[in-house]
Amino acid sequence: LVELNETIVRVRYAETDQMGFVYYGNYTAWFDIGRIELLRQLGLNVNELERKDDCYFVVAESQCKYHRPARFDDLLCVRTRILEVRARTIGFAYEIMNEATGDVLATGYTLHVICNKQGSPRTIPSPYHQLFETPDTGHTSS
Amino acid sequence: LVELNETIVRVRYAETDQMGFVYYGNYTAWFDIGRIELLRQLGLNVNELERKDDCYFVVAESQCKYHRPARFDDLLCVRTRILEVRARTIGFAYEIMNEATGDVLATGYTLHVICNKQGSPRTIPSPYHQLFETPDTGHTSS
Amino acid sequence: LVELNETIVRVRYAETDQMGFVYYGNYTAWFDIGRIELLRQLGLNVNELERKDDCYFVVAESQCKYHRPARFDDLLCVRTRILEVRARTIGFAYEIMNEATGDVLATGYTLHVICNKQGSPRTIPSPYHQLFETPDTGHTSS
Amino acid sequence: LVELNETIVRVRYAETDQMGFVYYGNYTAWFDIGRIELLRQLGLNVNELERKDDCYFVVAESQCKYHRPARFDDLLCVRTRILEVRARTIGFAYEIMNEATGDVLATGYTLHVICNKQGSPRTIPSPYHQLFETPDTGHTSS
Repeated sequence: LVELNETIVRVRYAETDQMGFVYYGNYTAWFDIGRIELLRQLGLNVNELERKDDCYFVVAESQCKYHRPARFDDLLCVRTRILEVRARTIGFAYEIMNEATGDVLATGYTLHVICNKQGSPRTIPSPYHQLFETPDTGHTSS
Repeated sequence: LVELNETIVRVRYAETDQMGFVYYGNYTAWFDIGRIELLRQLGLNVNELERKDDCYFVVAESQCKYHRPARFDDLLCVRTRILEVRARTIGFAYEIMNEATGDVLATGYTLHVICNKQGSPRTIPSPYHQLFETPDTGHTSS
Repeated sequence: LVELNETIVRVRYAETDQMGFVYYGNYTAWFDIGRIELLRQLGLNVNELERKDDCYFVVAESQCKYHRPARFDDLLCVRTRILEVRARTIGFAYEIMNEATGDVLATGYTLHVICNKQGSPRTIPSPYHQLFETPDTGHTSS
Repeated sequence: LVELNETIVRVRYAETDQMGFVYYGNYTAWFDIGRIELLRQLGLNVNELERKDDCYFVVAESQCKYHRPARFDDLLCVRTRILEVRARTIGFAYEIMNEATGDVLATGYTLHVICNKQGSPRTIPSPYHQLFETPDTGHTSS
């Protein structure tokens, strides 16, 4: 199904901290990668959305549960899906899996308000409406 | 009350992204500052906890709600308090306020599992037990 | 002398990596703090420069030598001075010192091209000319 | 030639700053990727070097020249080669190229001291000696 994206990332040295595994605040960069690739897969380019359509996905909420540590040089699979679409908001859910072991390392979500450059909420540009008109639209699709 | 810490931080240029305000994943660094200063205020030094007491506060969950943007060079007040203490876990709640306007920019929490260097859960070292023995211990103290 | 700024920063947990001390790429955030505070001391606000004067200090070169490790929770003194001012460029030199021991942990510099929002080089706005008209202007003042 | 590595990375949203392109301190993460992939190509795994061989590549110096901006979502080619090998140090040179246009966006280098976990300089473990015994060994191979 097109609504799921899987992207592989490798853990960077800079992402670790002195505990010896990935610093918890760095998972959002992987969430972003998953979300941006899922949108690309749907035909949406975030750069074009921002520059041509004056449409920004401003983060209103983020959450992450950390089940097992991610370590330097690990290959991870970022699994992203759309959680919820409303008139002016869109939510995404993420799973971070160790690609070698299949272990789920973390699960999280982000909720975004669709805004213009000035930060005022707006609806998603009309050419893209149908992309999000799934049977789940308007409902939590978890 | 000693269980609340307020620390001032100034937003760094590196913390912004191309939307023109602080990248949402960078708020955790402020949470850490608030938590570490609150622990210091209670007499706990995180470096000593890790090196002398083999006691690490591993993050199990984090959450943040973003109400208003934080911008480069803003002075922020990080307000931190202990949310919950259990045998092997401790939770902290945070408010990020704009120091000039008093606006609450974000609220969040982190939940930590107390572990040894190998990542096995353990209890907090006994000299520190009484620090967390508040009337609220074992209950959500929000 | 007003051309030297000293600012104290405390090392953040997020700034460490799995070697157990600060990741080398994170020193630039301290350079920025030093440079921004030095400019503020001279009467220049970077936010106003960008927004009102359409004047950006785009980094053209950066360099850092790492002499001793910086560790989590260390208090550091960032010593910043202007290295060189030319028509369209300005250079800054930095020393990162351990505030407790006085050890110099790192030395570095950044060279900036003064640009407008579109990235075209420009001169510094005229109200600020005299701020940089030191005896050393146009010469390396090391 | 095995001494050159080319690795493709895509610019992350978190890597930009409010100027609208990549923050200059974030290029080191790409340098690390290039260096680690070059070492892997030579048969050296950085994780194993650290854990099994007690051998760390501590950064002693880094430098970067920024020629053109890197922007969010750009595909970049990181070109890495060994610059110099000495008894206890090793230097790497990097080029960051825009994969679409071929433009060189940045050039840089890092110099590393080979250390044990305690930070004392040491020689590279003997099984790996011959990997670096190129005609250029001991000379700057730029």
